[in-house]
Amino acid sequence: MSSSLFDYEPRDWRTGTDERLRFALVGIGWWTTEFVLPAIETTEGCVTTTVVSSSNEKTGRVRREYETVEHGLTYEEFADGEALDAYDAVYVCTPNATHLEHVEAAAEHGKAVLCEKPMEATVERAERLVDACDDADVPLMVAYRMQTEPAVRRARELIRDGVVGEPVLVHGENSQPLLEMIDDPDQWRLNPDLTGYGTSVMDLGIYPLNTARFLLDADPVRVQSTMDSTHEAFADVPDQVATFSVVFDDGTHAACSSSQRGADHTRLEVVGTEGRVVLEPAFHMETQLTVERDGETVEFDTEGVDQMAEEFEYFAQRVLADEPLYADGEHGLADMKAIAAIHEAAESGETVDLS
Amino acid sequence: MSSSLFDYEPRDWRTGTDERLRFALVGIGWWTTEFVLPAIETTEGCVTTTVVSSSNEKTGRVRREYETVEHGLTYEEFADGEALDAYDAVYVCTPNATHLEHVEAAAEHGKAVLCEKPMEATVERAERLVDACDDADVPLMVAYRMQTEPAVRRARELIRDGVVGEPVLVHGENSQPLLEMIDDPDQWRLNPDLTGYGTSVMDLGIYPLNTARFLLDADPVRVQSTMDSTHEAFADVPDQVATFSVVFDDGTHAACSSSQRGADHTRLEVVGTEGRVVLEPAFHMETQLTVERDGETVEFDTEGVDQMAEEFEYFAQRVLADEPLYADGEHGLADMKAIAAIHEAAESGETVDLS
Repeated sequence: MSSSLFDYEPRDWRTGTDERLRFALVGIGWWTTEFVLPAIETTEGCVTTTVVSSSNEKTGRVRREYETVEHGLTYEEFADGEALDAYDAVYVCTPNATHLEHVEAAAEHGKAVLCEKPMEATVERAERLVDACDDADVPLMVAYRMQTEPAVRRARELIRDGVVGEPVLVHGENSQPLLEMIDDPDQWRLNPDLTGYGTSVMDLGIYPLNTARFLLDADPVRVQSTMDSTHEAFADVPDQVATFSVVFDDGTHAACSSSQRGADHTRLEVVGTEGRVVLEPAFHMETQLTVERDGETVEFDTEGVDQMAEEFEYFAQRVLADEPLYADGEHGLADMKAIAAIHEAAESGETVDLS
Repeated sequence: MSSSLFDYEPRDWRTGTDERLRFALVGIGWWTTEFVLPAIETTEGCVTTTVVSSSNEKTGRVRREYETVEHGLTYEEFADGEALDAYDAVYVCTPNATHLEHVEAAAEHGKAVLCEKPMEATVERAERLVDACDDADVPLMVAYRMQTEPAVRRARELIRDGVVGEPVLVHGENSQPLLEMIDDPDQWRLNPDLTGYGTSVMDLGIYPLNTARFLLDADPVRVQSTMDSTHEAFADVPDQVATFSVVFDDGTHAACSSSQRGADHTRLEVVGTEGRVVLEPAFHMETQLTVERDGETVEFDTEGVDQMAEEFEYFAQRVLADEPLYADGEHGLADMKAIAAIHEAAESGETVDLS
């Protein structure tokens, strides 16, 4: 092991400002209520003042529970610019195909945007989303929470320091039993009009894809894929189960899978010429890091963080300091293009080059 | 966990005969000298009486070390039928592209054949190998040692018993740093005339491929692959590093990698609808089995075996009892066809169907 064993770079978002960024949360489903609202409460730099939902009952419940939340808006009211003085930034966590309209509205209102991944349902719509922010000159960040995870950032440092030698292969897995989690065949993740290209790669495969990019500091150049949907609830999406391979521009090859059918499991491994880095579980809230080299295995008991709190804290501090954001729209677009190519590859049975 | 926790089927080769099968070992390189000769010494049903090599020095050394070995033959002497009365069966462990000639000779001599995997350099030659044994009516078995491994057999029983539910995905990895192990750019595994289609899939990828078939009791129907050779020693073989996906006839999808470049590592995982089975390390001599289901992880400290001793014991008992062998030539041919398809897929960039 290198001398850098206890020396790595946490996300450097402490800029010392006392100001707080005021958020409108657009979409207050499971993720926003269970993770985002509580996370923002723990931050120094963020406060939720506004929530946006089609359901007055939902916004009312949030307003009763969180005293900082002054405004509950419908999507129309949000689009029409109600309560504009109450918030500085917009967090978008709605079905993929609705991101664009909300980001366009936020950009029109001159608000900074933190948009959930995948950015949109299609590359074309994601590009329009980026253009909307560029044209309005508002900051845009894509919410890759794994990039805030200390075990992931630590792994990246170790790989950069050469602990595994030259990266050679990646294995990534992200599997969950969707219908056991949400017992509804009409949920939006199974509706191509809302989810986009499909369900498991968009929703789950994006984790090994993006986290591998982050760990390797590399981008996809070529993909292949096989997909299969057997359950009738998945009749309109091709990828209840998918495997996909990615060749990165550093020459690393990745063999990945995503599944809305298999038992809950996440794992990401980078095999290098000298050793291995394994994140397992990888993509849930308790990431475990193990490094193997020269027959020695080191398990890191990295202090966990609230990934969403880190995400928001970083975003707020950067926006308030008018500093560049990572991951930006271009970074998110690269994933969208790779996912589109993975779907194209599965449909055609051919390798698809990303140029 | 099912009630079958401590109830599984070891390889059922104890047929109670006192007879011993006498072997000619063809090819006495590293594997034969380090693993096979010592393994045979520990068996009840096998004895090595004959060794065959181009090197008189090698055969002489074996004869001095093993007192049962009466004959050291050149390949020509073996082909010409010298010392035919001294052995009943032939074990072939030479470079892939030379299996055919030795198996043809063994078949002509009426000897039972235990042939190392992969069976030959190409499908066409492997088919000729099977035909040679069929035509001469001699038993043929392909030496898949992993099928003797208690951890693997145990995993198969657990999968059959439904411990992981319905299998959904497989992840398989087999990586070794070939040039660190054998520091010779002219070794036969890098010479397509001797190795066949390539190096890492033929030599290493065959392990996750065949072991997955064994665990799932399923056969490949469709493959994809990416390959890359960067080191100059690999200039004549396409797959210093490879990823490949396999769709099996039970609907399971596998994402696999093989590499002669990455650090030493082997792993095989079957993810089902209810849980996971993990073999890690998988393909070396100490296979570790872990099963995960319902948040519970069970580690099996399965008693290790000498896989080659088991292989030979099984083969001998079956041949002596005139009973069918598994894995037979057809079983081995399925791997050869899949490997050929994997190479075709990598070269064309297209999915290749196996019919």
